[in-house]
Amino acid sequence: MQPWHTPLTPLSFLARSADVFPDVTALVHGDRSWTYAQLHAAVEERARALRAAGVQPGDRVAYMMPNVPEMLIAQFAVPLIDAVLVSVNTRLAPEEVRYICDHSGSSVLVLDTVHWPEITQVAPELETVRTIILAEDDQHADQPLARANPAGTHVVDLETFLAGASADADELVWAVADENQMLSINYTSGTTGRPKGVMYSHRGAYLNALSEIVHSGFDHDSVYLWTLPMFHCSGWCTGWALVAAGGLQVCLREVRGPVMWDLIDRHGVTHLNGAPTVITTIMNAEEAHDLDQRITITTAAAPPSPTMLARMADRGFEIVHVYGLTETYGPYTVCEWQKPWAELDGPARAAKQARQGVGMLTADRARVIRTDTDADELIDVPADGATMGEVVMRGNNVMLGYYQDEEATAKAFAGGWFHSGDLGVMHPDGYIELRDRAKDVVVSGGENISTIEVEQAIAAHPDVVDVAVVGIPDDRWGERPKAFIVRKDGADLAEEELLEFLRDRLARYKTPRHYEFLDVLPKTSTGKIQKHTLRAQEWAGRTARIQG
Amino acid sequence: MQPWHTPLTPLSFLARSADVFPDVTALVHGDRSWTYAQLHAAVEERARALRAAGVQPGDRVAYMMPNVPEMLIAQFAVPLIDAVLVSVNTRLAPEEVRYICDHSGSSVLVLDTVHWPEITQVAPELETVRTIILAEDDQHADQPLARANPAGTHVVDLETFLAGASADADELVWAVADENQMLSINYTSGTTGRPKGVMYSHRGAYLNALSEIVHSGFDHDSVYLWTLPMFHCSGWCTGWALVAAGGLQVCLREVRGPVMWDLIDRHGVTHLNGAPTVITTIMNAEEAHDLDQRITITTAAAPPSPTMLARMADRGFEIVHVYGLTETYGPYTVCEWQKPWAELDGPARAAKQARQGVGMLTADRARVIRTDTDADELIDVPADGATMGEVVMRGNNVMLGYYQDEEATAKAFAGGWFHSGDLGVMHPDGYIELRDRAKDVVVSGGENISTIEVEQAIAAHPDVVDVAVVGIPDDRWGERPKAFIVRKDGADLAEEELLEFLRDRLARYKTPRHYEFLDVLPKTSTGKIQKHTLRAQEWAGRTARIQG
Repeated sequence: MQPWHTPLTPLSFLARSADVFPDVTALVHGDRSWTYAQLHAAVEERARALRAAGVQPGDRVAYMMPNVPEMLIAQFAVPLIDAVLVSVNTRLAPEEVRYICDHSGSSVLVLDTVHWPEITQVAPELETVRTIILAEDDQHADQPLARANPAGTHVVDLETFLAGASADADELVWAVADENQMLSINYTSGTTGRPKGVMYSHRGAYLNALSEIVHSGFDHDSVYLWTLPMFHCSGWCTGWALVAAGGLQVCLREVRGPVMWDLIDRHGVTHLNGAPTVITTIMNAEEAHDLDQRITITTAAAPPSPTMLARMADRGFEIVHVYGLTETYGPYTVCEWQKPWAELDGPARAAKQARQGVGMLTADRARVIRTDTDADELIDVPADGATMGEVVMRGNNVMLGYYQDEEATAKAFAGGWFHSGDLGVMHPDGYIELRDRAKDVVVSGGENISTIEVEQAIAAHPDVVDVAVVGIPDDRWGERPKAFIVRKDGADLAEEELLEFLRDRLARYKTPRHYEFLDVLPKTSTGKIQKHTLRAQEWAGRTARIQG
Repeated sequence: MQPWHTPLTPLSFLARSADVFPDVTALVHGDRSWTYAQLHAAVEERARALRAAGVQPGDRVAYMMPNVPEMLIAQFAVPLIDAVLVSVNTRLAPEEVRYICDHSGSSVLVLDTVHWPEITQVAPELETVRTIILAEDDQHADQPLARANPAGTHVVDLETFLAGASADADELVWAVADENQMLSINYTSGTTGRPKGVMYSHRGAYLNALSEIVHSGFDHDSVYLWTLPMFHCSGWCTGWALVAAGGLQVCLREVRGPVMWDLIDRHGVTHLNGAPTVITTIMNAEEAHDLDQRITITTAAAPPSPTMLARMADRGFEIVHVYGLTETYGPYTVCEWQKPWAELDGPARAAKQARQGVGMLTADRARVIRTDTDADELIDVPADGATMGEVVMRGNNVMLGYYQDEEATAKAFAGGWFHSGDLGVMHPDGYIELRDRAKDVVVSGGENISTIEVEQAIAAHPDVVDVAVVGIPDDRWGERPKAFIVRKDGADLAEEELLEFLRDRLARYKTPRHYEFLDVLPKTSTGKIQKHTLRAQEWAGRTARIQG
């Protein structure tokens, strides 16, 4: 290694903060707290235990957890032994969790005890998982813990697992040999039926975290509330960013109004991230009141309305609007504030803030390209704020590719740029603004839902002949999926039966709440379903198609 | 190029800010100002002109300039055509400038017109410089401009030079192929007689700039006053950092009290960098008054005394204390503030702040190693705040090496770490504190002076038999060199004659003001001069050996 080269890795952030701020509080959960020295020790303890359990460099370790300290600890412990963290969306159905564990080839699955009852049923089928670790945090001791032991899989509680490794005193190196090596895999629903594993590198996570320090304004005095799921895009790399800044992170199990306001007041929260639904929940809570401190909310997908922005400003909140995908480590663009906007009236200013903006400091410039050419041929649309095109991105803020899926990776990277599938315009000032989605994806509460996946689950019912799923507006979630169904002649299939049928096949948040039974679906002459027709009738009178 | 990889370069900072903040003021000098769009255009204009003049990728271009806009523009324009910027200390004697131009093999020398009268004499001797460009800024139109044309060298004023290149409309690419390629060379006086060329890379400068944003707290509202020489360590990479943050930079030709206070008030300065002498000048100026805004002074070498710190706090200044060398892009460590220090009394708090601190966010951990072992064998001293050792550093914040000097590079990188030559201790809390210098270097007003270089210049006088130069305390400059001289038997060589002799051989700031004539110098049994004996008598009663 050259004396002038140190591979970039977010591990260095905790190594440094444990060194520089050992006695500063890094993490709070309920009545428990961890200093940076204690967080560092907890990470090393897990790393040693995982290594003692046979986890090798490059191995995948799956975690399925709410926003509890164990999940943040995992973001350092797994890469510390050069392994790869697979974060599992806690809202997935057991069958989906099984698919992700098997597809990633994870050898260990760490579960919060709340998820064990549902995962028990698929545990015997897991192909590569040898060890299941059940973690129960202090805040949840009242939860009943079932410990059925599925055939062939070792199930152990976290305390026992950690105790078994205490003899291993090998030195742990808080560095990596190659900054481009894989750090984590985050599964996302794309246009195909199965989730794809988005691979993050140490370098990408490091640089994304530095950008978030700059754009969200994290520093040593920051108190960050974990309203964004940690499993989502590695928590937008925010856990690493806060550790780099030497700030305080506040965990919580449930994103509910009373809980959030209690933590905001108790810890003097200064920052939080989340989809617009989080903002709505905070602002509409009974406990909502004016703030003593300022809170910066970094939000994605769509910014609040002018009315909501005004209400928030009155309370003491300010907004940083970002945009990105799982494939871009979370945020890629930021709607950089321009001083002259302060002189605009509310709606005009909100319209400026509603735009997705410009590449972050460590990201490349985003482009909007024509969609009427080959995917490999990247021709920018005019920057006129009117001509629609697809948003494409590249550089250090873009994933390494999809795990074990060269075909999907090649398609996503056609022409050397990542194709977001999002449609938008380029304004004359270089800000992008989304207008529609090219992909068959519904974004509900910040999570992608593949309409094709939902359609396949519904089509599996013997009475269904044809089905189309589109996103419809929802005041709370931004969008929700709605299913349009053609039944078999004479079948009297109803909504209730479908819901029952889908219960074990589809995560609850993906399952449509709205069904409409048609005689025939609108189709093109070549037989392709015209989803835009279905969408148009549902979105009539709404200005924004893209919402959280 | 992989879609997930963009080589790191500070060029991207200006490309982005010109895109995002085109109409925001980037730079002010006297009555002139440049928006980010104008700065971008000025950079491209220079880059095209240099390319039209035959500058090829990898070529060196030397600049000798005070802190005027042209020097900041050069920090982007030269690397924009993949060339290497050689910044020349404006206080060097003509012979020293000639050496640097020749050693770096620079093909172009850009001079502020104030330097032309002195450089004229060495211009005919320059071995590789084909073109000398004279830049005269608006603020200095009263300066007489002599344009003697030395044999074989093309001398042209900047306006003519730029005008000749306007037809070149090749696209300029604001990116580099390799982030480890050379960006600049900064010559520094080390322990040997000749200055060595410290090579910076694009990656190193990019990451150092990001650290400075975090540690000095630069943002879009920052107004930075250029009290640190831009030629010094590429201005600590601060020009790139401010452009990244989208802040405003205020130029100035002379670091004098009235000028600084005028600019502080006029532009609402929030940040400046400088050696302790800069702080003294500001605080002792007749114009000194309480500030409307807060000013953060990032200072190196040594922090102010408790008394000065208290005076500064009263006025509205705060201090960020950093430490580094030319070999580390300027700052490498920062004395991170710890909240409990606020409860200490003035002297105890100042003692904490006087320490050089810990590696910056993008730097590695600094080490203090034993000096009684081979240079290759790196053994840490105990972290007891008492055991002396040498400070060593490595990683992205360390130079690529010395230009065209493999031997010096290998020596500096013995054992895979950069040997600073600075002696200090490691405190139990991981903070380093300097105590002495291993190298024969005097640091005066923030600039290194090689005592060996000064000794060689003095020894060239025929009446000098033996000479030793050490640093002595100086209230204004921190240290000044003092010469101890043994004369030839019977010679009556006096101070005045020596000063006259040294005038053309040595830069004024390196020339000793104090001389002492001895019969014999104190030496070891093996004949080595005991400089520590000479130093000890001069520093009696002073606690700090290391000062600015």
